[in-house]
Amino acid sequence: MERSQHKTLRQAYGFDDVALVPGDITINPDQTDISFAVDKLNLSIPILASAMDGVVDVRFAIAMGKLGGLAVLNLEGVQARYDDPSIVLDKIANAPQQEVTALLQKIYSEPIKENLVGDRIRAIKKTGAVCAVSLTPANTKRLSPLAVEAGIDVLVVQSTVTTARHVSKSYKGLIFSELVKQLPVPVIVGNCVSYSACRKLMETGIHGLLVGVGPGAACTTREVLGVGVPQATAIMDCAAARDDYFKVSGRRVPIIADGGMRNGGDICKAFACGADAVMLGSIFAQTKEAPGKGNHWGMATPHEALPRGTRVKVGMKGTLEQTLFGPSSVTDGTQNLIGALRTAMGVCGARNIKEMHQTEVIIAPSIKTEGKFFQMMQGLAKC
Amino acid sequence: MERSQHKTLRQAYGFDDVALVPGDITINPDQTDISFAVDKLNLSIPILASAMDGVVDVRFAIAMGKLGGLAVLNLEGVQARYDDPSIVLDKIANAPQQEVTALLQKIYSEPIKENLVGDRIRAIKKTGAVCAVSLTPANTKRLSPLAVEAGIDVLVVQSTVTTARHVSKSYKGLIFSELVKQLPVPVIVGNCVSYSACRKLMETGIHGLLVGVGPGAACTTREVLGVGVPQATAIMDCAAARDDYFKVSGRRVPIIADGGMRNGGDICKAFACGADAVMLGSIFAQTKEAPGKGNHWGMATPHEALPRGTRVKVGMKGTLEQTLFGPSSVTDGTQNLIGALRTAMGVCGARNIKEMHQTEVIIAPSIKTEGKFFQMMQGLAKC
Amino acid sequence: MERSQHKTLRQAYGFDDVALVPGDITINPDQTDISFAVDKLNLSIPILASAMDGVVDVRFAIAMGKLGGLAVLNLEGVQARYDDPSIVLDKIANAPQQEVTALLQKIYSEPIKENLVGDRIRAIKKTGAVCAVSLTPANTKRLSPLAVEAGIDVLVVQSTVTTARHVSKSYKGLIFSELVKQLPVPVIVGNCVSYSACRKLMETGIHGLLVGVGPGAACTTREVLGVGVPQATAIMDCAAARDDYFKVSGRRVPIIADGGMRNGGDICKAFACGADAVMLGSIFAQTKEAPGKGNHWGMATPHEALPRGTRVKVGMKGTLEQTLFGPSSVTDGTQNLIGALRTAMGVCGARNIKEMHQTEVIIAPSIKTEGKFFQMMQGLAKC
Amino acid sequence: MERSQHKTLRQAYGFDDVALVPGDITINPDQTDISFAVDKLNLSIPILASAMDGVVDVRFAIAMGKLGGLAVLNLEGVQARYDDPSIVLDKIANAPQQEVTALLQKIYSEPIKENLVGDRIRAIKKTGAVCAVSLTPANTKRLSPLAVEAGIDVLVVQSTVTTARHVSKSYKGLIFSELVKQLPVPVIVGNCVSYSACRKLMETGIHGLLVGVGPGAACTTREVLGVGVPQATAIMDCAAARDDYFKVSGRRVPIIADGGMRNGGDICKAFACGADAVMLGSIFAQTKEAPGKGNHWGMATPHEALPRGTRVKVGMKGTLEQTLFGPSSVTDGTQNLIGALRTAMGVCGARNIKEMHQTEVIIAPSIKTEGKFFQMMQGLAKC
Repeated sequence: MERSQHKTLRQAYGFDDVALVPGDITINPDQTDISFAVDKLNLSIPILASAMDGVVDVRFAIAMGKLGGLAVLNLEGVQARYDDPSIVLDKIANAPQQEVTALLQKIYSEPIKENLVGDRIRAIKKTGAVCAVSLTPANTKRLSPLAVEAGIDVLVVQSTVTTARHVSKSYKGLIFSELVKQLPVPVIVGNCVSYSACRKLMETGIHGLLVGVGPGAACTTREVLGVGVPQATAIMDCAAARDDYFKVSGRRVPIIADGGMRNGGDICKAFACGADAVMLGSIFAQTKEAPGKGNHWGMATPHEALPRGTRVKVGMKGTLEQTLFGPSSVTDGTQNLIGALRTAMGVCGARNIKEMHQTEVIIAPSIKTEGKFFQMMQGLAKC
Repeated sequence: MERSQHKTLRQAYGFDDVALVPGDITINPDQTDISFAVDKLNLSIPILASAMDGVVDVRFAIAMGKLGGLAVLNLEGVQARYDDPSIVLDKIANAPQQEVTALLQKIYSEPIKENLVGDRIRAIKKTGAVCAVSLTPANTKRLSPLAVEAGIDVLVVQSTVTTARHVSKSYKGLIFSELVKQLPVPVIVGNCVSYSACRKLMETGIHGLLVGVGPGAACTTREVLGVGVPQATAIMDCAAARDDYFKVSGRRVPIIADGGMRNGGDICKAFACGADAVMLGSIFAQTKEAPGKGNHWGMATPHEALPRGTRVKVGMKGTLEQTLFGPSSVTDGTQNLIGALRTAMGVCGARNIKEMHQTEVIIAPSIKTEGKFFQMMQGLAKC
Repeated sequence: MERSQHKTLRQAYGFDDVALVPGDITINPDQTDISFAVDKLNLSIPILASAMDGVVDVRFAIAMGKLGGLAVLNLEGVQARYDDPSIVLDKIANAPQQEVTALLQKIYSEPIKENLVGDRIRAIKKTGAVCAVSLTPANTKRLSPLAVEAGIDVLVVQSTVTTARHVSKSYKGLIFSELVKQLPVPVIVGNCVSYSACRKLMETGIHGLLVGVGPGAACTTREVLGVGVPQATAIMDCAAARDDYFKVSGRRVPIIADGGMRNGGDICKAFACGADAVMLGSIFAQTKEAPGKGNHWGMATPHEALPRGTRVKVGMKGTLEQTLFGPSSVTDGTQNLIGALRTAMGVCGARNIKEMHQTEVIIAPSIKTEGKFFQMMQGLAKC
Repeated sequence: MERSQHKTLRQAYGFDDVALVPGDITINPDQTDISFAVDKLNLSIPILASAMDGVVDVRFAIAMGKLGGLAVLNLEGVQARYDDPSIVLDKIANAPQQEVTALLQKIYSEPIKENLVGDRIRAIKKTGAVCAVSLTPANTKRLSPLAVEAGIDVLVVQSTVTTARHVSKSYKGLIFSELVKQLPVPVIVGNCVSYSACRKLMETGIHGLLVGVGPGAACTTREVLGVGVPQATAIMDCAAARDDYFKVSGRRVPIIADGGMRNGGDICKAFACGADAVMLGSIFAQTKEAPGKGNHWGMATPHEALPRGTRVKVGMKGTLEQTLFGPSSVTDGTQNLIGALRTAMGVCGARNIKEMHQTEVIIAPSIKTEGKFFQMMQGLAKC
């Protein structure tokens, strides 16, 4: 009896599964170059803040801009639904855990107010800060002209999974090749995780790509849908797409690792795997400047019929500046992220992010798992 | 000294070990087709309820039929042994954990009453619902004529492991090729997990196959017998058998993943691995309609000499309708299973179940395990 | 710069890592043959009890013989050092955990009394039971003649690791090829785990081999020495040695899996991996007949300078007969071991132990680990 | 669409992932030779104590020398910053956990006092003990002449990662080929983990190499920087570099495994993987002679901007002599390390360390992980 091969499964890796191998030469951290560019926009540090309501509001976006990074304001969150978002943010922070999903569903059923779209953007722009905002594909046609008019520097079009082609009856799919021609600002699109989906999006002319489906701390996409690719593999696959697309087109579309990074170690691994920049949610939700007041939730959490993820109590750990530049007095890797990145680049002998992409990555699960396990057990023992 | 190779071991995978990769195109969930057919029977949703006494009674079977699925009533359980099963179901629900195995052994030593077989079936049929019942191979010859006479639409012949050929002295083995000719209804047989056992059963002419040995929540077959195949691999192997058998015979025998699915994510993975439908036990045991009142136990649990599995307290979470169609206000993937399946198909670019079989599956153990571990630790911390 | 390959590491597997695949045919359990032979000795069940002081004394050996198995009495344990061992067994059972290693070191510093060697053997033999005893290689020359004279049926020569050649200054190494010629009884030797060590021992003419280094519940050889081979791989490698040696010599030397089996599932896996029989310690230490009164410790535990393992509180679960033949009212696989073995053979389509060796073994770690983890967490939650 | 291969990831292994296979012959432990030489210096046991302030002070160094090993005194720690280090050591021991990192940062901001460098060395030398000291590369040029003048026998130049070439603006990099010509004592350099970095360092003429980045108990380099190689793989790779370099140069540069060894089993594995000696931190921090009084911290912990690791409460378990030579009354492998090494060599049939390098190493994760997990759970249950 002849037998056909069943599916061949490829092994994928998350940050916990891998580690970086030091280089053959070392470099002083102050000799490393970590700047990042998307289209004509240049940033002195390769770090973005996620378009999540517990992370970015106007005040946070301004603070982030001053420090050299880029915060993305969500134009479909509470900032665009409520004149005074602080009231609902307080409610979310104080709700009992078993009621919070229903509360979020209710809060996000309030319609988006078009006048607020412009107001928020202008509040950021008047300080001279760079302004980035996000929209879902379904609302991009309607709201992006308002955002452009109000002065945004970057548009992020983002949903759990975005592809170059969407089949739908209910609305005419967004065509990225048209969008990038119409808009005078760079367009970053996401999220995607596979080589082919990534390349097809790059071929539409978009200017940057968010990489990551299912890895974030406030996300249960894998429990609910079964869908998700561990972040180390997702980044490596999309980096291969970026490099291959560059070879045939001469255009280099940077990829931004989005989600799943919990400390400096994970961030360094993201760059070694091929990321040009990283977008952080839960780490920034822990800063004193974050609007979530020590709480964090994803933008799929309030879905009216199929909520994914929940509010996570992340606590407040330090200022945004301390988180980015130190000095740190904690040893869990959540502070002085830039110091950690420069130190890791030095140890790996990388003068810039592109050289960091050459770092050897190994599969090395055991120590970390053990360590984390032990920490959890100790944490529990204290309860 | 020459050396012979020792056994070559193949790696097998469970749902926790794998994840789905989003597609290159996406599809709106409302554009997906999830219908399922076994022989001439058509169902609007590809979901069956397990033939377990904590899950299916007459009332549950009727409710399930109305919602488009198929519940299988066990003709060798308490429904066929007791005129009023509610009394023993109460006893099971209220027994202390250390006494429950002995109690189950006693309750299931009561003989099957042939008059009840017909009564239960007629109670379902008179509402117009589709009626499916299950028997073990040893009792099929005796009881299946009664069931057919009472009007069943589908017969399920099920034991822990069922093969096309059984060696026995004590009774003449059931011959499936004869059974399917004698009975006027489709016959679903199970359980099996390997390519060859699956194909040999398909060659007997049966109409559907249950796939799964040892994966269920109420099952300890692996502890007691060492036997069991993780469900993702079992489904992929049996799907290969189905496809190969179709190529030589022109007849497509659907496979139904039975056991081991704890949330929408697992169900979506089962379809991506090749299942045509899924059969759920513990998820349905948690519905308000389930006769187990928040308890769940397997049909091997009451075995008089070698009990396997035990009563698990699963709790009551919501109605059957909410479980299948939402809306959900939980984020652990146990509600709105159909919404989750359609959303996952959309994200994977699958218009129907057969296209969903083409979804790329990767090995991706770490995130989920960590998440579950963390949830357990948090749950424990609350105790 | 050229680079030499570093060591190639082979993956090894324990019982938790593997599972058995059901067969293409099934067999009624009462049709299976599970008899076992070593040289001219025949046993109706393929199960031995370990030469450990918490497991086997005279009374246990007699009970085991009546039920068809074989218990091995340790001639270097408390039975041969104390006229009334019950006093020291009580002390061991009642010692606080932090003092028990020092107590064991003291108790086992009492010299072996040669008169007790004969007494214990004759006490077993006078009931008509088969009598097996164990000695370490260093004491075999001195004590084996006494044991033979007292009427033993089988001699077991056992230490943590035993090889065909031992380099020593302090005593002339035991030469197995001479020993088997001198003794009128079959000689079982152990322990070993690798193909080559196993074959070299078989070539000395010995009659049976114990397989297992480091897997037992009362053993910390891997923590202390780093040495140990997971039992599924050890059995498969030694089974290959047995089969290859048979091909060139025509003599079949049975291998007995010793250690690491905690339930019926593990025992069934040992046979599927190639074992001809299994030797159990901790499972039998839990029987009411065991001298350890619910305690279990290894024979390396009392080592004067480098103790390995400790006393484990295993509890008392049922009678020896119930453990072997049921009926069981527990569902963790620790009772009705013979029923479990026959059922697994039936499910795998194996008529006898040699056919059971043909069963497909897969690598399938996740379900069990998760299950065990969950049980532990639940057990903890009850504390 | 053609696709380039993404990065190929090599699997790396830690001590928990591997185990040793017994040999085909066995050797009595008293017949094994475990001596170790670096350049002209000979040690009767192949064990060093880490240059950490919780482990080595003058008194400890003398005690270690008497027992045949080698303790390395850190010339940049509290011993060289404070006239009476006992005061700050007390403070460290008594600080609350949440304040200890800030305290360490403060304590280590005190400047190094050059007069103390000579004082500490002479205090060791006047007892006749061998004296080894460590410096970081940045301070080696300035302080090594003082150390040599005071009479050291060995210089250790150590930082988290040291390479043959360091790119820096702020100071002229240390050139090892010049250093070894200038100094009259052997130079040991570290740490490194990869084949190529190791070989390049050997080619500079240095006399010994420390292997290990990220594996130690008091280290969080992997959390903070993402950098680290599990120790079994690191040792095997560097052993390959040592052997290859010996083939082309005729000079054998010994490698010393540094970090990550928690018991005798790990130490035995380090030798089987290819280490010529081992350097231990946390095990020695547990001795009564250690200055840390049951506390242990790494030398990267006090980093002013990016601290890594923290103070770990390791407790006091026994004397240094008992730790090295026993007798042991614990069974967790932390006492009688030399007895454990000799016993493992005997079981593996290795007459000396070079033969121990030939021992077969297998990948065998499950038993140990399970055991440790179980111990943790039990430990927790006692809380």
